[in-house]
Amino acid sequence: MALTGVLRPGHVALRVLDMDAALKHYTEVIGLIETGRDEQGRVFLKGWDEHDHHSVILRETDRAGMDFMGFRVDSDATLERLAGELAQCGLATDLTWLPAGDLRHTGRRLRFTVPTGHSIEIYAHKDQIGCATGDVNPDPWPDGLRGMAPGRFDHCLLYGDDLDGTVKLFREVLGFTLAEQIVAGPENMLIGAFLTCSNKAHDVAFIRHPEKNKFHHASFSLDNWGEVLRAADIISKRDVSLDIGPTRHGITRGETIYFFDPSGNRNEVFSGGYTHYPDKPTITWTEAEIGKAIFYHDRKLNEAFLSVLT
Amino acid sequence: MALTGVLRPGHVALRVLDMDAALKHYTEVIGLIETGRDEQGRVFLKGWDEHDHHSVILRETDRAGMDFMGFRVDSDATLERLAGELAQCGLATDLTWLPAGDLRHTGRRLRFTVPTGHSIEIYAHKDQIGCATGDVNPDPWPDGLRGMAPGRFDHCLLYGDDLDGTVKLFREVLGFTLAEQIVAGPENMLIGAFLTCSNKAHDVAFIRHPEKNKFHHASFSLDNWGEVLRAADIISKRDVSLDIGPTRHGITRGETIYFFDPSGNRNEVFSGGYTHYPDKPTITWTEAEIGKAIFYHDRKLNEAFLSVLT
Amino acid sequence: MALTGVLRPGHVALRVLDMDAALKHYTEVIGLIETGRDEQGRVFLKGWDEHDHHSVILRETDRAGMDFMGFRVDSDATLERLAGELAQCGLATDLTWLPAGDLRHTGRRLRFTVPTGHSIEIYAHKDQIGCATGDVNPDPWPDGLRGMAPGRFDHCLLYGDDLDGTVKLFREVLGFTLAEQIVAGPENMLIGAFLTCSNKAHDVAFIRHPEKNKFHHASFSLDNWGEVLRAADIISKRDVSLDIGPTRHGITRGETIYFFDPSGNRNEVFSGGYTHYPDKPTITWTEAEIGKAIFYHDRKLNEAFLSVLT
Amino acid sequence: MALTGVLRPGHVALRVLDMDAALKHYTEVIGLIETGRDEQGRVFLKGWDEHDHHSVILRETDRAGMDFMGFRVDSDATLERLAGELAQCGLATDLTWLPAGDLRHTGRRLRFTVPTGHSIEIYAHKDQIGCATGDVNPDPWPDGLRGMAPGRFDHCLLYGDDLDGTVKLFREVLGFTLAEQIVAGPENMLIGAFLTCSNKAHDVAFIRHPEKNKFHHASFSLDNWGEVLRAADIISKRDVSLDIGPTRHGITRGETIYFFDPSGNRNEVFSGGYTHYPDKPTITWTEAEIGKAIFYHDRKLNEAFLSVLT
Repeated sequence: MALTGVLRPGHVALRVLDMDAALKHYTEVIGLIETGRDEQGRVFLKGWDEHDHHSVILRETDRAGMDFMGFRVDSDATLERLAGELAQCGLATDLTWLPAGDLRHTGRRLRFTVPTGHSIEIYAHKDQIGCATGDVNPDPWPDGLRGMAPGRFDHCLLYGDDLDGTVKLFREVLGFTLAEQIVAGPENMLIGAFLTCSNKAHDVAFIRHPEKNKFHHASFSLDNWGEVLRAADIISKRDVSLDIGPTRHGITRGETIYFFDPSGNRNEVFSGGYTHYPDKPTITWTEAEIGKAIFYHDRKLNEAFLSVLT
Repeated sequence: MALTGVLRPGHVALRVLDMDAALKHYTEVIGLIETGRDEQGRVFLKGWDEHDHHSVILRETDRAGMDFMGFRVDSDATLERLAGELAQCGLATDLTWLPAGDLRHTGRRLRFTVPTGHSIEIYAHKDQIGCATGDVNPDPWPDGLRGMAPGRFDHCLLYGDDLDGTVKLFREVLGFTLAEQIVAGPENMLIGAFLTCSNKAHDVAFIRHPEKNKFHHASFSLDNWGEVLRAADIISKRDVSLDIGPTRHGITRGETIYFFDPSGNRNEVFSGGYTHYPDKPTITWTEAEIGKAIFYHDRKLNEAFLSVLT
Repeated sequence: MALTGVLRPGHVALRVLDMDAALKHYTEVIGLIETGRDEQGRVFLKGWDEHDHHSVILRETDRAGMDFMGFRVDSDATLERLAGELAQCGLATDLTWLPAGDLRHTGRRLRFTVPTGHSIEIYAHKDQIGCATGDVNPDPWPDGLRGMAPGRFDHCLLYGDDLDGTVKLFREVLGFTLAEQIVAGPENMLIGAFLTCSNKAHDVAFIRHPEKNKFHHASFSLDNWGEVLRAADIISKRDVSLDIGPTRHGITRGETIYFFDPSGNRNEVFSGGYTHYPDKPTITWTEAEIGKAIFYHDRKLNEAFLSVLT
Repeated sequence: MALTGVLRPGHVALRVLDMDAALKHYTEVIGLIETGRDEQGRVFLKGWDEHDHHSVILRETDRAGMDFMGFRVDSDATLERLAGELAQCGLATDLTWLPAGDLRHTGRRLRFTVPTGHSIEIYAHKDQIGCATGDVNPDPWPDGLRGMAPGRFDHCLLYGDDLDGTVKLFREVLGFTLAEQIVAGPENMLIGAFLTCSNKAHDVAFIRHPEKNKFHHASFSLDNWGEVLRAADIISKRDVSLDIGPTRHGITRGETIYFFDPSGNRNEVFSGGYTHYPDKPTITWTEAEIGKAIFYHDRKLNEAFLSVLT
């Protein structure tokens, strides 16, 4: 098999302060599709082009942020193998098996804490309910889309302290490639890592930050720069809180806009980027060009980039 | 490792009738970059965003068409393993090892003939000369681009008789996934197969055809539908022979234009498509919708699609 | 005043064979907005960005085609002045005043037949019901759009015999400029004329044709090439009859797609074009490049262009 | 004639601190074409799609800003008529006739000072040297373009004190229409006026400001939002000083980016906007939505908008 091991970011579980406001945002502004709820009141959502039952899970509570992020692996055998390697690598803590069904339509998951403090999961099964265009003579896009209408949940950017440990875990245990990195300081310390398990420029990314387990954004993929403009217009039409954009990232070349859900969790929709291969050299951004790396046009970080986290 | 085995289409070797005219076409109209020539007079080219030494090889002779198509595998170990499996599978013939250096900057290659009659190669090494934007603080695109300026060689569409055999070889031996298929006739015979070893919608495709070893097109990737228009304009500004487009394929959703090089080999530039995963159900196009499958807007095949091959 | 005299194409009245099918097409596929009906059963429609009460009038009868096309002039004084000049110029026939209210929300109209046989009207008043985004703090586009959602009715292309006479009337009496022309034959006879009364590349166009009073298409304006693709997709998703496109016209540079309403009347949606000024030299297309003039990429006329008329 | 009186912004004369740096900027970054120099050392430039000899005039001196802005009128008769009206209206001061040839390839100009302190000119003649694609069988765009490659100089935004007087002069004497306005304060005072003499959303605009004769920006037109991104990339690739963008204006709906020439004069490139007609109601932006009016996505003015002027 050509695509093996960890296949993709499968879900992100976000905490929201008000479920009604959050659902309005995620279904009407972003345009995800609600696919179910569970007895805890969690709501499950997906993009129109995703086959699995859900990729976003919302939970109402009194503090925003990310509960966990899950990655789909290709098989039970891989799940078992990775469970063994995680147990032995000395980088993952709090390893816990969650039984099938704990998350709706999802098989058993192995949850663990990575050195930056985030709860990460791997799992080998989730029921496929199909994408909105079907698998027989599909149209290129479905009717009835709402809002920005991204096809897929794409990746998260997470902040935490032990960046080296988390990067080591993702590369050496989970088989990710370091597509791009930011280095800074007299010894070129790694301060940002953009990791991929696929041909995408990133499937998850981490920024070095003094506090553990912080959430920067969950990102959803659009088809093109025209859709980024349309997303920007929707943000203003609906008076959604904007962070920055439309603009381009130097990192990944992505065309992007950042904004906030009603609970203060940052979202991104983006398009573009290149085709990654594991033998591609890691792209390095140096301290002098950190501005271009993050926001290619502004060439400087906005204040929110480093400070507004959930 | 998440991306393993066969990584990508690494090169296509095309026969051209007049090297000067061909080079003008491939470097000025398409906008590939010449990276070398060998003592046989073959010319090596690549897209600006490719790291390997070349992805297109042109050879002047008296008959147009494709000499061979090569796939890069992730390691020598994979090359050895696949060599063994190819020797045993009963689907590949004419297995031949070509020594390192037979193709410039390229390691040893295992060449074999697939049941549709095409010469396919696998190899584990090609020198990286880097992409045009470099690996340190890269701009999103380089200066000095010419013509359509695709970033990469993307895939080929090939025609031949024993489609079932070739598809079986690519799926069962080389680890490809069948992303989309066309079926027709009372028994839903497979007549088109779109195969991927990556997150791309296709890395190689085959159409059932009475004659062996025919070449339909080599395709190069653009960033967006605006670039497809620009490519269409360039085709007309330079009086290049157009086949069809700009339009969309139902298959892969790609935004596309087909045209011919001066020797009559068909080229495609395209953008768009979805993110493929190996657990995604195969999309099936039925006979009633073959028109939409191939040319989504025209909803019928043009005459050239089935008959103009090299 | 800088914009004076004839301001714009204000309405086109089309005959349709089945009003229900036509309305479904014009409101759901194209996405015009119904604004009223009259006692004759005529239905009035407009684009979302138009202020006047209507720009399209549909009438059910047993033969498709165009009843008349109307142009808005800047004032009653101009209407009077042009009425006098039309009466004296010897080019207009059948001059008839239609009273205010004959067409809903529209002032009196002067109708006349031009030498190519088409019924043309001028009028100085139509009630403004406003555009969908309003005039106070407007968003750039409204919610609730359907289909292709063009902002405006833009122009018509009409076929008829006495092209010279009609062009003379539009230029010398109505004050239009000849933005582009097609000439052919040993004496460079004028066979196509693209006329404008504004900064648009054309407000009405005529092709020389043996039969009088034929209708080629009514055109609606989109914002960009991405919307042309979306329109093309909608055409196929809804199995609307396609003529040609997406492509570009050499004439006007417009990005375009042609399709048919259920009665066989041709529609166009398009984007792009240049800013015209009356002192810009007329662009001339010669016989050798007629293909590029009409369909810049295909570089030849499709059969329908000259023969499918209503 | 349908387009009469004042036809278009014909030229803007800018002061630059270093001609070499300025020329590099205006020809390589923006991509205007140099068409001549005069004995004073002034350099003349135009966009590739303009027919007249020049639309931008650069003069090296020790203070940046705008020397004058000129408007092309349709005829000598109009020039004479407007000269008379300007002399009598009581709004224009310093009326001066400049002889033909004072500006290269340009007929006599009437220069006057408007109440906001800006030097405005009108003229009826400038030699046409033709646009880059020619007038016979033109391609949609020429080869050899550089930088952002706008087709045309489009408009200026100017700041000054007596906004009411200048708006009165442009509307009542020069025949402009007030397409959009910003009002603020308890009495809804006019603080911004967007004026057009054409179907464009604006040909010149003014903002109320305590100081006379200040220059905010000169704007050049691109074809689409994809070109705005490309312009943004060029700005960063060449380390040009960015003001803001890519973004959208609420006013005019334009898709835009602001940046500075090496002397500190602000430039804009933009695309989009609607088709204006003189009978369209003036759009009003109220104080509560000034942010959206100027920068639709950010919904607030950046500090530079009100303070960085030349």
